[in-house]
Amino acid sequence: MEIVKKGPLVYEGKGKKVFETKNSNQVVLFFKDDLTAWQGLKKGSFSGKGKICHQVFCLVFSYLKSQGMAVHWIRKLNSEESLCKKVNIFPLEAVVRNRLAGSTAKRLGIKEGTALKQSPLLEYYYKKDQLEDPFISEEQIRRIPLIEEISFLGQIKEKALAVNDLLRPWFLKAGMELVDFKMEFGLDSENKLLLADDITPDSCRLWDTKTKEKLDKDRFRKDLGNVKEGYQTIEERLINCYADPV
Amino acid sequence: MEIVKKGPLVYEGKGKKVFETKNSNQVVLFFKDDLTAWQGLKKGSFSGKGKICHQVFCLVFSYLKSQGMAVHWIRKLNSEESLCKKVNIFPLEAVVRNRLAGSTAKRLGIKEGTALKQSPLLEYYYKKDQLEDPFISEEQIRRIPLIEEISFLGQIKEKALAVNDLLRPWFLKAGMELVDFKMEFGLDSENKLLLADDITPDSCRLWDTKTKEKLDKDRFRKDLGNVKEGYQTIEERLINCYADPV
Repeated sequence: MEIVKKGPLVYEGKGKKVFETKNSNQVVLFFKDDLTAWQGLKKGSFSGKGKICHQVFCLVFSYLKSQGMAVHWIRKLNSEESLCKKVNIFPLEAVVRNRLAGSTAKRLGIKEGTALKQSPLLEYYYKKDQLEDPFISEEQIRRIPLIEEISFLGQIKEKALAVNDLLRPWFLKAGMELVDFKMEFGLDSENKLLLADDITPDSCRLWDTKTKEKLDKDRFRKDLGNVKEGYQTIEERLINCYADPV
Repeated sequence: MEIVKKGPLVYEGKGKKVFETKNSNQVVLFFKDDLTAWQGLKKGSFSGKGKICHQVFCLVFSYLKSQGMAVHWIRKLNSEESLCKKVNIFPLEAVVRNRLAGSTAKRLGIKEGTALKQSPLLEYYYKKDQLEDPFISEEQIRRIPLIEEISFLGQIKEKALAVNDLLRPWFLKAGMELVDFKMEFGLDSENKLLLADDITPDSCRLWDTKTKEKLDKDRFRKDLGNVKEGYQTIEERLINCYADPV
């Protein structure tokens, strides 16, 4: 396999850095040790966090790819970096909830953990840091002149639900309930819609199936302690369940 | 016509009082002079405000009724009171926007007055004072165990859009652009869905068609001055255009 040389940094987010490569259609994703919550107001980090998130990302994305899902992930380069297709990201976060928790539970005054009448619930958030990524309805996305190329919204919806259909039993087999998770999508150079960004303990709620113990970033958000241990548990359970394929 | 005697006060809201009558299926709505904004944080009032809002309410609801819309309004009793059917109100506000303004424009960082790609936009807000009436998507209404009898949601949607189709040209003929407005719906004793609550300068954005001057509660919200004059202008234009039918 060709050795990939990182080019200049093109983007630095809260949890990742993106570097150019010689191939203008490919980038390197580097996973940082930083942890942030509440729109960046709360900051933290622990050594090895980037590696854990990267490992979970590789396991999740290689599994989704093996099931025919179009993803930006190409291959793992080392313990904290992957090669990915370059995409133009939509300014939308798609959140799938199998059970109520997080901002929606709080905003609507519902007890965390409440079951849905019909599962899952698909939500969108408009990616805009200055506005704190506001919740946006499908009707608003379609009618407000805010996001271009909304012709892809149907595909985003379909893929988001398909990813949930794949990942919910996949995590369950490893002893974890996928309560909710966030996805981002983008278009590659051929205008094909790909699942992009990442899916890691930073962007999922994962509860122990039996004890309902939180294993994800909520340990950090809510000061529950043992943040690193939670992340490690997620990684270990996935590795034990699914031999590292990458 | 039978004389209606007001019974005990059954409910007092920000802008209205509701009284029982001898007929258990009917109530009296009394319009107060109070003005509130920002979830009641900002308070004000002016003498005659209740009468103006009541008059606009009667004109709007009698017009809608004449066009076959099912409404709770029965008839005007005096300058500040109407007889209405008693309804069980849904804990949902339906907001129709023909142009962007208000909380949605602010939340999504859009310039007030921006035209929609496709008009109108229908939004729902969950009526709950403690939560500040949060915005809620149709998908959330249907999937979250929050509101019962959501089987009526399709009818609410249809009626809300039909009311807008009737009122937009009706206000336009009187020289005013209906930018957006809020509706509430409820079920009468026969489980029939009725347009309830009110539609007044408190719950609509109405701009002068030519000058785009705001005539509604935004004059109070935004400290634009001449609040009473704005409300009077709305009432006068409607009376001049549509002879008082009540």
